[in-house]
Amino acid sequence: MRLSQFFLPVLKENPAEAQIASHRYMLRAGMIRQSSAGIYSWLPLGFRVLKKIEQIVREEQDAAGALEVLMPTIQPADLWRESGRYDDYGKEMLRITDRHGRDMLYGPTNEEQITEIFRAAARSYRDVPKLLYHIQWKFRDEVRPRFGIMRGREFLMKDAYSFDLDYESSRRAYNKMFVSYLRTFERMGLQAIPLRAATGPIGGDLSHEFVVLADTGESEVFCHRDLLEFRAPTDIDYDGDLQPIVDRWTSIYAAADEMHDPAECPVPDADLVKRRGIEVGHIFHFGSKYSKPMGATVTGPDGQETELQMGSYGIGVSRLVGGIIEASHDGDGIIWPDPVAPFHVGIVNLKAGDADCDAACEGLETQFANAGLEVLVDDTDERAGAKFATMDLIGLPWQIVVGPRGLKNGVVEVKRRRSGEKEETTLEAAVNKVVGFE
Amino acid sequence: MRLSQFFLPVLKENPAEAQIASHRYMLRAGMIRQSSAGIYSWLPLGFRVLKKIEQIVREEQDAAGALEVLMPTIQPADLWRESGRYDDYGKEMLRITDRHGRDMLYGPTNEEQITEIFRAAARSYRDVPKLLYHIQWKFRDEVRPRFGIMRGREFLMKDAYSFDLDYESSRRAYNKMFVSYLRTFERMGLQAIPLRAATGPIGGDLSHEFVVLADTGESEVFCHRDLLEFRAPTDIDYDGDLQPIVDRWTSIYAAADEMHDPAECPVPDADLVKRRGIEVGHIFHFGSKYSKPMGATVTGPDGQETELQMGSYGIGVSRLVGGIIEASHDGDGIIWPDPVAPFHVGIVNLKAGDADCDAACEGLETQFANAGLEVLVDDTDERAGAKFATMDLIGLPWQIVVGPRGLKNGVVEVKRRRSGEKEETTLEAAVNKVVGFE
Repeated sequence: MRLSQFFLPVLKENPAEAQIASHRYMLRAGMIRQSSAGIYSWLPLGFRVLKKIEQIVREEQDAAGALEVLMPTIQPADLWRESGRYDDYGKEMLRITDRHGRDMLYGPTNEEQITEIFRAAARSYRDVPKLLYHIQWKFRDEVRPRFGIMRGREFLMKDAYSFDLDYESSRRAYNKMFVSYLRTFERMGLQAIPLRAATGPIGGDLSHEFVVLADTGESEVFCHRDLLEFRAPTDIDYDGDLQPIVDRWTSIYAAADEMHDPAECPVPDADLVKRRGIEVGHIFHFGSKYSKPMGATVTGPDGQETELQMGSYGIGVSRLVGGIIEASHDGDGIIWPDPVAPFHVGIVNLKAGDADCDAACEGLETQFANAGLEVLVDDTDERAGAKFATMDLIGLPWQIVVGPRGLKNGVVEVKRRRSGEKEETTLEAAVNKVVGFE
Repeated sequence: MRLSQFFLPVLKENPAEAQIASHRYMLRAGMIRQSSAGIYSWLPLGFRVLKKIEQIVREEQDAAGALEVLMPTIQPADLWRESGRYDDYGKEMLRITDRHGRDMLYGPTNEEQITEIFRAAARSYRDVPKLLYHIQWKFRDEVRPRFGIMRGREFLMKDAYSFDLDYESSRRAYNKMFVSYLRTFERMGLQAIPLRAATGPIGGDLSHEFVVLADTGESEVFCHRDLLEFRAPTDIDYDGDLQPIVDRWTSIYAAADEMHDPAECPVPDADLVKRRGIEVGHIFHFGSKYSKPMGATVTGPDGQETELQMGSYGIGVSRLVGGIIEASHDGDGIIWPDPVAPFHVGIVNLKAGDADCDAACEGLETQFANAGLEVLVDDTDERAGAKFATMDLIGLPWQIVVGPRGLKNGVVEVKRRRSGEKEETTLEAAVNKVVGFE
């Protein structure tokens, strides 16, 4: 992609309204534009990151055996009257009246809707277990939206729902999601830790939230230092017993600020670390909380009608874009982890229009493309300093600077954004270095 | 994918409310479930088709040089007051008041929103031409939603918008979309013809609608029989001159019922064909209709502030699912064109649980998967007749029937859904036949 043909409305100044790094950098890097309070448009650079995150979430849901569906954004109020949550939900629910005067709402979550779908289809124990998920825009009418897409009103979320005949089976679904969340966040270059959590308005008896560690995170997290060394398991057999993995991760101390009582903490001071974090996922087991009032039952092997055991499992897909930036940036801009970078490589042409520089850039672009890497070439006539500043701001993992003086000696400069490390190499070595690394 | 693990709530009876083939078959094949009038959930089988169509649309937009963005579903009313359309739009616009009493709406289209984004970013003639598109859910509060997802209220649409300095350049953007639409529909196995169209509420001076030919289509189309032989061009250079392609397609007679006057028609009766069709795309050039009231200008090469020339280009992504079914079905069910089929191959295991049958099915599944094909294996204990009926209903391009008697002779039955042609072959020949065809 040539920058001259791309749509990247970079801002030179820090927007006054942006209080945190992700909000500031997403606006400055032309990733998003505010439409109204807490509602944003995703411009091409931001959209590319959003899609990469969505795809990682999707792949890990599929790997865990969840089936993708898509429920609509607008739901009938009657559905929420069945569960009793219509009146409970308060002003965060965006309530709508259609042209025929029917009460509708913009879904803030989908427990009722998926329960309605499943109860209409499932007849017997042979129809379970099932895990269904969707990735869809949701709306919560926050009284004071802030921090950009981190606490917006319209947001993209993955929510999965499990249906099982009994608690044991339901617990297996919970474990599948628990383990797949560890994989999901690690694939994005994040360190995420599960915390035992309160269940809140979703309800239920078992719940964990997943918190991404970031120095600029919104809340405090206390945990045993050993937890920071944990890595997500690989080669998972989702049909096997996942309890040992879950036990390993949950047996070690980790608590959010409001759950942490220094007097009760079992971890010696020397081993206790205090970090800041951002909630990016939340899983709940809530048994028959929805299946009971909504009559979602199947016939068991014994011929008895049995209320389905359910759980729900959310990941804040759009929120993760901000979470990753909070976890990975410096004073100059964003530092994308390779798997979610909008482009893998940025090539700066220091003298666009110069035949040698243009040819060198085009050659590099082709070689990277052939290796399956996405490239953004700055072919504009901005001055060099502005080009470097933009490249650092948008945070592509690799930068290659092509200038007439270097080319005379057959070299370009390769920079790794994360380390800042720079090296002058031949064009061929530059390609090998980047491709070999990826 | 094993059917026992999939979520495919097939209906045996025709739903009373479904008047047309696509609505009937989408409900019966467990592709969708109605949430409220004109609003549907997409179940796994339907979702897979929706995503394939979306991806073809995306690839052809990208090929034409359009950049993908994503605008939110909820827009501020003030934006529509700027263009003057807020009051004009009538009851089809879903109007919403948020918790702070602000007037919002669920976007039925995005001309205002994209104009606001572009005017904030574009400064000079160097910032154009640009083509931006998004694929997003939209809402039109139809007074009488019907025909399933063909005329629903919440629907998925691709809408692109072009920004140019002058009419000539804007016309090139229009031509890019015109040609990419020919490619898009042909890749889905559809015969789509462009008709000169009235511009309606979008406004403007130049417009074509794209109509898919289907015997059960909603409206009548008259055209010269030669047009039915036209094929979309391949290997298109979108930076080249596309006018000859557009001229070729628009010089031959084609008109919707309301535009067709037999007395004025230049085509001799012998060459005039009357077919039924379904509108699946619509492109508009409307010049400064939005840029003028909204002040979307750039500085021209002459230093003068110039109002941007714009166009908009829509494809009904969710509607296409129904359109394809209308164009491709028989009395037994859907007949998916290969590129949009939810799975490429359906394998019917006539005796699930029999070691030989299970092993043969698993072997076939693995070989197809290795060849990049998606497979659905019916491993349930339904009776054979019901399994065949379901396979025909869901319309996968290839069916392979594996039974104990055939396996004794080393053969399975291969059926092409479209032709109904059946053949008994060895397992190896079955794989070669299907893989070789695709």
